[in-house]
Amino acid sequence: MSSILKQRVRYAPYLKKLRTPEQCIELFEHGQYLGWSGFTGVGAPKVIPTALVDHVEKNNLQGKLGFNLFVGASAGPEECRWAENGMILRRSPHQVGKPIAKSINEGKTAFFDKHLSMFPQDLTYGFYTREKANDLLDYTIIEATAITEDGSIVPGPAVGASPEMISCSDKVIIEVNTKTRSFEGLHDIDMPVQPPHRQPYPYTWAGQKSGVTAIPVDPSKVVAIVESHTGDKVPPNTPSDQMSRNISGHLIEFLQNEVNQGRLPENLHPLQSGIGNIANAVIEGLAESNFKNLTVWTEVLQDSFLDLFEAGSLEYATATSIRLTEDGFERFFKNWDTYSQKLCLRSQVVSNSPEIIRRLGVIAMNTPVEVDIYAHANSTNVSGSRMLNGLGGSADFLRNAKLSIMHTPAARATKTDPTGLSCIVPMASHVDQTEHDLDVIVTDFGLADLRGLSPKERSRVIIKNCAHPDFQAQLMEYVERSEFYGAKMKSLHEPHILKDAFKMHINLAENGTMKLPSWDAKF
Amino acid sequence: MSSILKQRVRYAPYLKKLRTPEQCIELFEHGQYLGWSGFTGVGAPKVIPTALVDHVEKNNLQGKLGFNLFVGASAGPEECRWAENGMILRRSPHQVGKPIAKSINEGKTAFFDKHLSMFPQDLTYGFYTREKANDLLDYTIIEATAITEDGSIVPGPAVGASPEMISCSDKVIIEVNTKTRSFEGLHDIDMPVQPPHRQPYPYTWAGQKSGVTAIPVDPSKVVAIVESHTGDKVPPNTPSDQMSRNISGHLIEFLQNEVNQGRLPENLHPLQSGIGNIANAVIEGLAESNFKNLTVWTEVLQDSFLDLFEAGSLEYATATSIRLTEDGFERFFKNWDTYSQKLCLRSQVVSNSPEIIRRLGVIAMNTPVEVDIYAHANSTNVSGSRMLNGLGGSADFLRNAKLSIMHTPAARATKTDPTGLSCIVPMASHVDQTEHDLDVIVTDFGLADLRGLSPKERSRVIIKNCAHPDFQAQLMEYVERSEFYGAKMKSLHEPHILKDAFKMHINLAENGTMKLPSWDAKF
Repeated sequence: MSSILKQRVRYAPYLKKLRTPEQCIELFEHGQYLGWSGFTGVGAPKVIPTALVDHVEKNNLQGKLGFNLFVGASAGPEECRWAENGMILRRSPHQVGKPIAKSINEGKTAFFDKHLSMFPQDLTYGFYTREKANDLLDYTIIEATAITEDGSIVPGPAVGASPEMISCSDKVIIEVNTKTRSFEGLHDIDMPVQPPHRQPYPYTWAGQKSGVTAIPVDPSKVVAIVESHTGDKVPPNTPSDQMSRNISGHLIEFLQNEVNQGRLPENLHPLQSGIGNIANAVIEGLAESNFKNLTVWTEVLQDSFLDLFEAGSLEYATATSIRLTEDGFERFFKNWDTYSQKLCLRSQVVSNSPEIIRRLGVIAMNTPVEVDIYAHANSTNVSGSRMLNGLGGSADFLRNAKLSIMHTPAARATKTDPTGLSCIVPMASHVDQTEHDLDVIVTDFGLADLRGLSPKERSRVIIKNCAHPDFQAQLMEYVERSEFYGAKMKSLHEPHILKDAFKMHINLAENGTMKLPSWDAKF
Repeated sequence: MSSILKQRVRYAPYLKKLRTPEQCIELFEHGQYLGWSGFTGVGAPKVIPTALVDHVEKNNLQGKLGFNLFVGASAGPEECRWAENGMILRRSPHQVGKPIAKSINEGKTAFFDKHLSMFPQDLTYGFYTREKANDLLDYTIIEATAITEDGSIVPGPAVGASPEMISCSDKVIIEVNTKTRSFEGLHDIDMPVQPPHRQPYPYTWAGQKSGVTAIPVDPSKVVAIVESHTGDKVPPNTPSDQMSRNISGHLIEFLQNEVNQGRLPENLHPLQSGIGNIANAVIEGLAESNFKNLTVWTEVLQDSFLDLFEAGSLEYATATSIRLTEDGFERFFKNWDTYSQKLCLRSQVVSNSPEIIRRLGVIAMNTPVEVDIYAHANSTNVSGSRMLNGLGGSADFLRNAKLSIMHTPAARATKTDPTGLSCIVPMASHVDQTEHDLDVIVTDFGLADLRGLSPKERSRVIIKNCAHPDFQAQLMEYVERSEFYGAKMKSLHEPHILKDAFKMHINLAENGTMKLPSWDAKF
């Protein structure tokens, strides 16, 4: 037992339950329901999942030791190895990692994606364990960075769904990570309360705290603790490029105009921003802008937010996870005293709460797979069927924000055509955000402000302002043909020709580009 | 000036602004932005809209006197006459009446539908008046049943969006309805507050009150008051039939089982229920069931809720409108003292608030146009294009409820085929509720409990339990073909064949039935 472990675990009875990861293997059986801590690739358990997958590989147990696995959002690379070894029978609500998506899209893993604000609460309702006699998760495996005097669990860089998982778990296993520093003091955690006993969340600004700093747990539920020396491995962030800087430019001009028109205050409203190079470019753009005293209410903080702090533009940031690169964590730990005053981590039902997002008037920005000419967006399934990562919190934010913004490149390259895939399509092949949810669409070519527009007005402004020039004429031809048909059918509200609506997708599958020889092409 | 008017208007200065409806005509100009009170056909202004449309008809002003019209939800039959006379240039967020839908679907009215919880707040943000110099509605015409000593407006049977409209209106005109009784004491109204100054809504049960009983208004904004003797005209409710009673039976069995499993308390959670014969059958079913001490948190109350009160099953009901038939209002007024203790009307941003719906754990029940095999629902556009009434509050409730339920007949008749239209389709032709929003689908044939199921699991249980037998084989064939194709394309998460996804809709348009000769049929 390392001295640092003894220091971190301030509740002595747990130390009697210390095991090696390998000694935990015997606890697991095929078909069990497991909860893992973690969110967006940080704060997930590592050494026990590794021991289990090593065990499966060594003993050729592929297909014989599989689990129903729930993680707040995505876990780390350990989960990919589980997927490669057939260990994920069922999975929800969000995942990242090619082997996991492969397992889902090959039909080996039964996946369902769910609003991240809602998943943990539905879990506590017993909705996802209703086939089980005891209605509980068999185990929650949670990464801690410290244990308090009463046995409560101090998470690391993610709170996620851990509070709910622990509250509805039969048994709990704790991985105490001694490689990283203790995150004690960085969390503000609301424990789940069921209706009809729920009170309002009191938060009226990003920095308000009213929760606990560690997750209470009945110590008798804790069956093992394990020491972990494995750090989080976050891949380097995709740097911004001309495309993403163009998007950022349009967006910042738009926000500035909202301020000028009196529809936003000079420090804007709390910001939500996703992951990826567009999100990074937007945050970079904000750091270089005149906006000061910003606040952030989001689900995940990345390295770029540290830049925004350091530019002096950011007053307070809150999320459910802080997903930093190794360099980022180094910067973060070096300035811990400052950052821990300006930042807190909450449970995902709070960070993604419709209640608070709406109350605060959040400005939400996300990247879709595609949007259509009437402003529906697909966040999840390529060509309607192939799962990427899942819905995540996109709909929590976009449904409830004051300004709901989707940013995307106008077109992407296919194998044979540098602009073969238009991100503006006639009809989204899967709808996660409806036309009733989006206010603004922005691409590298321009911005479409859709507020108060009818569908027919939207189609024009989206195509004109946002579509890639290679697709503008083709899309306008769809609009004109659909309106001609709609006039005949007295269906001119949101004109579509259902025979043609997916022709661009079908041509992509068959000919490698969304550029059609003609709208009359037969497939 | 009638003595009853003098009695109702307790703020004397308004009486100096008394006009006849005809004397108001001069206030209006083509292209103005108007707000009307009203919600689900009750509480809307009547005599001024009638004077205006009479004026248009008499002077052949069709196309020369049109307005941008906003109503909380639908208004009364007066609005249909406006539509017939080309008086509605733009309309949001929800409407009922064949001439209005006709005007929208012929492309004469630019309509956009929006979440009813969000529309009023977006209006106060200036999102829908951003083309106007003063960023305000030109007039709000509001029906009152009394005026208090300080000039505040006591609404009638609907609160709707009136508080927000008045707060962002340049001028206000009041129709004091003296035909009906005063509704004073029945309302609990939260006035709009903008971020970053918003506090939580405090409501933790249906009957809690914290608002005002009348809508405050700056008296200098009130340019006219008019006496109205026109009552609300609600068409008779469609009675329940065997189909709707079957749905109700499945639903009540499901709810009873949830209680038995410990996932709901014996008095359930607050109920939301829509309009129509299925909704009526469900409420009838509840009245005959063993469930007692029920509460209702919904957007509109109908006659059937009076039955539920009279059966002794209902403890408290709240909504933003009480849409009763003439008979219903008679029963209601007769027992005013009792009902006014057990019922209150709120603004629609509160009745439909995601915050409160989620906190209370509401059980939401709505009827769609169609649902698909993966549990997306279309609430608005027939065959993707033809607007019915609009989204309404369906998504406010279904996104946030503890249990989100869609009920629909399995099939409907077409002109030539008594079961030609399947309400279960391969892919919804318009998506208003996503697969991430629905827990349960129920038809006259059975109930599908979708909680925790992957898309491929959902398709089977929906088709098996809910689809009309005439369509089961056809839908299962779509599933099997799509899974075969999905396996080939490594897209097995939510298998679709985009070429075939709308074939049932296309066959309906071309051949009058969704029954396909074969999935290989070409169109």
